[in-house]
Amino acid sequence: MTKKVLKFGGTSVGSIKRIVHAAKIIKKEHENGNSIIVVVSAMAGTTNNLIEHSRSISKKFNKRELDVLLTSGEQVTSALMAGALNDIGVTARSWMSWQIPIITQGDHTNARIINMNVKKVNDYLSEGGVAVIPGFQGISKSGDITSIGRGGSDATAVAIAKIFQTDSCEIYTDVDGVYSSDPNKIPLAKKIDKISYEEMLELSSLGAKVMQSSAVQSAMMNNIPIQVKSTFTERKGTEINSEENIDYNKAVTGVAYSKDDAKITLLGVSDQPGVAADIFEPLSKNQINVDMVIQNISSDGKKTDLTFTTKRQDSSNAISLIKSNKKIKYEKMHMNDKVSKISIVGAGMVATPGITYKMFRSLAEEKINILAISTSEIKISVIINENLTIEAVKKLHRTFKLD
Amino acid sequence: MTKKVLKFGGTSVGSIKRIVHAAKIIKKEHENGNSIIVVVSAMAGTTNNLIEHSRSISKKFNKRELDVLLTSGEQVTSALMAGALNDIGVTARSWMSWQIPIITQGDHTNARIINMNVKKVNDYLSEGGVAVIPGFQGISKSGDITSIGRGGSDATAVAIAKIFQTDSCEIYTDVDGVYSSDPNKIPLAKKIDKISYEEMLELSSLGAKVMQSSAVQSAMMNNIPIQVKSTFTERKGTEINSEENIDYNKAVTGVAYSKDDAKITLLGVSDQPGVAADIFEPLSKNQINVDMVIQNISSDGKKTDLTFTTKRQDSSNAISLIKSNKKIKYEKMHMNDKVSKISIVGAGMVATPGITYKMFRSLAEEKINILAISTSEIKISVIINENLTIEAVKKLHRTFKLD
Repeated sequence: MTKKVLKFGGTSVGSIKRIVHAAKIIKKEHENGNSIIVVVSAMAGTTNNLIEHSRSISKKFNKRELDVLLTSGEQVTSALMAGALNDIGVTARSWMSWQIPIITQGDHTNARIINMNVKKVNDYLSEGGVAVIPGFQGISKSGDITSIGRGGSDATAVAIAKIFQTDSCEIYTDVDGVYSSDPNKIPLAKKIDKISYEEMLELSSLGAKVMQSSAVQSAMMNNIPIQVKSTFTERKGTEINSEENIDYNKAVTGVAYSKDDAKITLLGVSDQPGVAADIFEPLSKNQINVDMVIQNISSDGKKTDLTFTTKRQDSSNAISLIKSNKKIKYEKMHMNDKVSKISIVGAGMVATPGITYKMFRSLAEEKINILAISTSEIKISVIINENLTIEAVKKLHRTFKLD
Repeated sequence: MTKKVLKFGGTSVGSIKRIVHAAKIIKKEHENGNSIIVVVSAMAGTTNNLIEHSRSISKKFNKRELDVLLTSGEQVTSALMAGALNDIGVTARSWMSWQIPIITQGDHTNARIINMNVKKVNDYLSEGGVAVIPGFQGISKSGDITSIGRGGSDATAVAIAKIFQTDSCEIYTDVDGVYSSDPNKIPLAKKIDKISYEEMLELSSLGAKVMQSSAVQSAMMNNIPIQVKSTFTERKGTEINSEENIDYNKAVTGVAYSKDDAKITLLGVSDQPGVAADIFEPLSKNQINVDMVIQNISSDGKKTDLTFTTKRQDSSNAISLIKSNKKIKYEKMHMNDKVSKISIVGAGMVATPGITYKMFRSLAEEKINILAISTSEIKISVIINENLTIEAVKKLHRTFKLD
């Protein structure tokens, strides 16, 4: 018998109609002879409403109680889902974290699952029952309710797949898989059949919101293949697996972009140890996230230029912090907050020479000027003028045959 | 140190503003040196919304899962209340039923509390913390979530008062106490300072919605005095206590009325054993509740007249059930569905002669015709024409000096 984890996200259980629809998918899998553990998120909107409630009481709402508050959302969905399954003739029950129990470690609102007792749930599964488990939550060793961060239901699904040693882990969501780019904005973007954990992580960190990054990381560490599927269509989804299980016939898997960046350049910075630290320390202390950092080797050994990017909303704050810090010596500062970042991602890049050249050449063909470049093992990112974003993404799709 | 249970009902915690307001009441009690256990209901409207959700999935929604679903409402309020208390500097935490635990017995959606472990909560109280406990719920011996019926938060408060042996049990609600009649309809109704459990039960069963009947019963059985107070005013509330602790300076405590009654009379029923059973059996089988039953001694030993009242909505159904049952022999049937029931309630009645006469005389003075009469130890009920209801209640207030 195949044991499966089926996880349904917030939009997949966002209304009673959708819960009933998801129950039918579960019923079908169960009738096919599979042993099923269902993981559910809170109904779309619920968690935000509860957070809003807590904030209107206090900006620093007690974190222990925030966990008690927020976990109620998944409790509601679990009960509704178990009820919906019973209604269509599937034996099912909800299992709260404390009933299993699912043990977590770490701070409130940011704990992680370290263990589960599999006995009772496994007994229930072998009697033919479907177990419905609320995602996102657990209990601490001292018996407090904990939560594992926003989007944590993905992490619950992966942890269950690992600890219950299930044969598959299927993430049902409102898109039908992972795309080479956002299909709503780039109509020629194509669904990816197979993607590696690393590529998925790069795409996630660049804005693809299909799955929570820490859950992908945990799947990678435990080598658990993930199926991303649509709750609303029957199309084949995307498999997330380790690189060795993927046949790469393309060097580039996807093109990601973000449009809310700003580029700041300091010209004529003294090229001496500690200067970069002096510049970034005040930014870090003020919670300003620095993304790309590019520093050229100075030609004369005395002065250099330093470019970095931040979120657009932080840019003016970053500039005043640098201006007001007398320790930082530079000749001129430029800022451009009308830029975007375009990244090509692909595990096949390493084995394919000339990808960088090909990327730059194809952008040049469209007369798109590259303002800054940064590369990693499986990713090349460039900064360009914002108004050319969609054109660049489309061109790169064609260049790397993603369309 | 005085140990208190403070229970806040659905409207008292019906919005964030009200939760914050209730937290201030709790803070004051805590600062006065009291040891405090708070019991909270779900925010007004929440339970009905959740029930509606379950019904749109199934008319026969699984009862185990219904309990998991509905108890989430009090979990939310407990967390918000504990958070609100922390925000104003009061050490507080929520205690879910399974964390205490509160053990129940009986069916899902209708369990009752049989025990609680007081150790951990008492330790917390003696360290100066305020314990916030969700009402309405517990866990079964096998570790399932259970609920104890609508309005069950009152029962939780009384059970806690009993098992934790608290010095008082205070029910905070949206009215400032128990009135001699509904103050919204009868402006001359007066707040009652002290009322016995029995009187409270009679008034509750007659429509006064201040406190859940089974909770009053449980308080009576365990001799726990209850203070009913308003969350929104500082006026003195009503004390519910045993008769011997109340000085009765009035024979009548309150006047209750219900306006959705119907009176059915069977004339010329054979006066023989089993005839009443024959009449009421089909009604009972069809979930038709019979309230008052009046049967006169027959004058000739052969025929008698039988009158009973039902809820107005059930009356036509009752009539067809009687008509279609050939076993029931009678000469004529009358129905009047434009009647109401007026009751005077008072533990002091027993010791005061002439109350019945006084009631009938004062109604006669207003030319109000009495259609049926029924009496108990502490209550006299009469059926009158509906259009005279308010007039009758006002007159009885004046007669028994309740205004």
